[in-house]
Amino acid sequence: MNALPESSLLTEKFAKLGVESAPGQEGRQQVDSIDLRGDRIVGTPVDFSHGDVDAHPPIPGSLELFQRGYEVGGSQAYTEYRGQAAIREQLAAKLAEFTGAPIDSDSEMILTPGTQGALFLAMGANIGRGDKVAIVEPDYFANRKLVEFFEGELVPVGMDYFGTDSGSGIDLLKLGECFRYGVKLFVFSNPNNPTGVVYSPDEILAIAELAETHGVRVIVDQLYSRQIFDGVRYTHLRGLDKLNSDNLLTIIGPSKTESLSGFRLGAAFGSSQMIDRMEKLQAIVSLRAAGYCQTVLANWFSEPTGWIQARIAAHQAIRDDIHEAFLRANGFKLRLGEGGSYLFPQMPEMDISIGDFVKVLRLQAEVIVTPGTQFGPQFTNSFRINFSQDHTAAVQAIQRTIEIANRYRV
Amino acid sequence: MNALPESSLLTEKFAKLGVESAPGQEGRQQVDSIDLRGDRIVGTPVDFSHGDVDAHPPIPGSLELFQRGYEVGGSQAYTEYRGQAAIREQLAAKLAEFTGAPIDSDSEMILTPGTQGALFLAMGANIGRGDKVAIVEPDYFANRKLVEFFEGELVPVGMDYFGTDSGSGIDLLKLGECFRYGVKLFVFSNPNNPTGVVYSPDEILAIAELAETHGVRVIVDQLYSRQIFDGVRYTHLRGLDKLNSDNLLTIIGPSKTESLSGFRLGAAFGSSQMIDRMEKLQAIVSLRAAGYCQTVLANWFSEPTGWIQARIAAHQAIRDDIHEAFLRANGFKLRLGEGGSYLFPQMPEMDISIGDFVKVLRLQAEVIVTPGTQFGPQFTNSFRINFSQDHTAAVQAIQRTIEIANRYRV
Repeated sequence: MNALPESSLLTEKFAKLGVESAPGQEGRQQVDSIDLRGDRIVGTPVDFSHGDVDAHPPIPGSLELFQRGYEVGGSQAYTEYRGQAAIREQLAAKLAEFTGAPIDSDSEMILTPGTQGALFLAMGANIGRGDKVAIVEPDYFANRKLVEFFEGELVPVGMDYFGTDSGSGIDLLKLGECFRYGVKLFVFSNPNNPTGVVYSPDEILAIAELAETHGVRVIVDQLYSRQIFDGVRYTHLRGLDKLNSDNLLTIIGPSKTESLSGFRLGAAFGSSQMIDRMEKLQAIVSLRAAGYCQTVLANWFSEPTGWIQARIAAHQAIRDDIHEAFLRANGFKLRLGEGGSYLFPQMPEMDISIGDFVKVLRLQAEVIVTPGTQFGPQFTNSFRINFSQDHTAAVQAIQRTIEIANRYRV
Repeated sequence: MNALPESSLLTEKFAKLGVESAPGQEGRQQVDSIDLRGDRIVGTPVDFSHGDVDAHPPIPGSLELFQRGYEVGGSQAYTEYRGQAAIREQLAAKLAEFTGAPIDSDSEMILTPGTQGALFLAMGANIGRGDKVAIVEPDYFANRKLVEFFEGELVPVGMDYFGTDSGSGIDLLKLGECFRYGVKLFVFSNPNNPTGVVYSPDEILAIAELAETHGVRVIVDQLYSRQIFDGVRYTHLRGLDKLNSDNLLTIIGPSKTESLSGFRLGAAFGSSQMIDRMEKLQAIVSLRAAGYCQTVLANWFSEPTGWIQARIAAHQAIRDDIHEAFLRANGFKLRLGEGGSYLFPQMPEMDISIGDFVKVLRLQAEVIVTPGTQFGPQFTNSFRINFSQDHTAAVQAIQRTIEIANRYRV
């Protein structure tokens, strides 16, 4: 017989967890009854939903490190849930230097299956049913979904990224107000996903002071914090030492700039209370980051001389050319990204929904982008691109994107 | 300042999620004020909390497959959340043959970060707050923890594994009764973890009929179902075709018999509704099983001729010697395991708690076992061993275990 009816709460929870428009899932989209105008435009397919690790390969020596881990055998296959101790020790020293504050590798760090894994465990460790959680709009789409999954109450805080040339434009008045009225946790990414803007030193200081004043816990997702472009100053929240260290967790991983996504590795560090809970959760979620993969972390923050600088320069050059293409196209708006590989262009007024535009673009121009509505319901005419692609192919794909968009302008 | 007080619900949730006595976490145990009697007994250290992949190495060619996945590059790093399509297709065909019922690889299968990952996603996809979930006692400890984490109501069903020589001894009357009174989900492992008993064909048929009659969903964890010993008949629940296929999910993985735990791979197959939800959850939990690792699945169920038979035979021989050692030791009880690598010996009456015994054993004899209370609160004088170890070292470690136990008998 059919299963017993389930609680409407569970049905609703999963209704909110749609993945059809999520990056990487485009192959599962329904494409019936889309209004296609004009011919297909031929060109090298580009999937802007994530970076191209063939165009920007992993840190040299990563495969060899994996082999070494495999050869270590059992002790590397079955590490502590929080990750192998010596690997944590080595990495903690490097991350302490990078972020400007010490890390106890035994109690203040956990290795996770990707940065996504770290974010899931961190949110699960902090959000009780009904807890108010402040998030930025726009920000990484999983932040919203995680708050909803753990039954927290979403408190959105705006970011006027077109209203400023330096800093994110986060609404600090609103942030202070919601901290005063019971927000327990604040989660944000810096550089921001999807816009690529970097929070100014003043903004980070203000966040630290507000959180400290009101006893709010903070999770900062610094996934892209190594890829900062010329002339931009990056501030590590934990380096300021303004916030009770029990209340702050920093997340980072080698999946993006370093192209190690295929190994699923991430790290979280800071509050030992949060790390303890995250490990308890990890024990029932997936046990640990794949043991042999953990070994690959040895090269992270220890790349060959000049490697990371060359990677940043290559991305800055792609960013500049894409920025110029959008500036030349009439009606588009684009804030120049200051770090990371995301841009969040805003289109002119269209007579097609952003969801349908994304599908048309894939069918007519073999270009995949992520609809803005994944990052906040109000971003109905923006889309996100990850420009960590082959340089020439990316610029050509942006030209095709503009051409297709022009077919649907009001 | 200190963080705002959190809801007591969250505090309670994590209090229940202790990992100190969990397998693999022994290095984090507190060992103050333990009553140590007699001298240390020297011998090769054995960690019975999990299998030794150095003694029983991974499927030949696994590392080479990983390398091949790495060389494929971007498309293997960023698979669909449910796993790379061609790998799923190949595996679905093999698992359909193994379990005796077809699998649509597109809609009815997901690859996960380990079997633990599959179990977490499956429970999360099915348990709403307050839902009654039946589990077996004893059974895999994470089953209990997952029900509690998702705020379901635990309904334990006993298993009289000492009361029968064939089958598990599950209390089918109790199972039927709780199905009648509102249980929505039943989760069990077969072969059973921790006892190694295999459910008889009649028991599996009865479970299928009861679940079908009452519309109860079933998750069956078949992690060890390839390692079945001589003379034992294994029944695949899905192969019976008695249960609405929307209501049944089967879980399996190559971490145990095949020693691939270091790659963190698992698979769930069956109900497409459950698989859809599991993928939605995977998208916020860890995105996917590590992309390059997925490639390693190509050799699973395609091992060299005779490889799996030899592995089973090696484990049966270790089981037999350990069984004999316990039989010779006065006062121990042990049901002979019929599949998998676990045994669950019951000790004579002791004047030390099982938790302290486990710590003493580690300190005095360098033997690690998992306390029975992890598998149900009533198993206060049992412990679990994973006998997938070096044969000689394992048998010697069991002798030391018996000797240490004798020092604490009433």
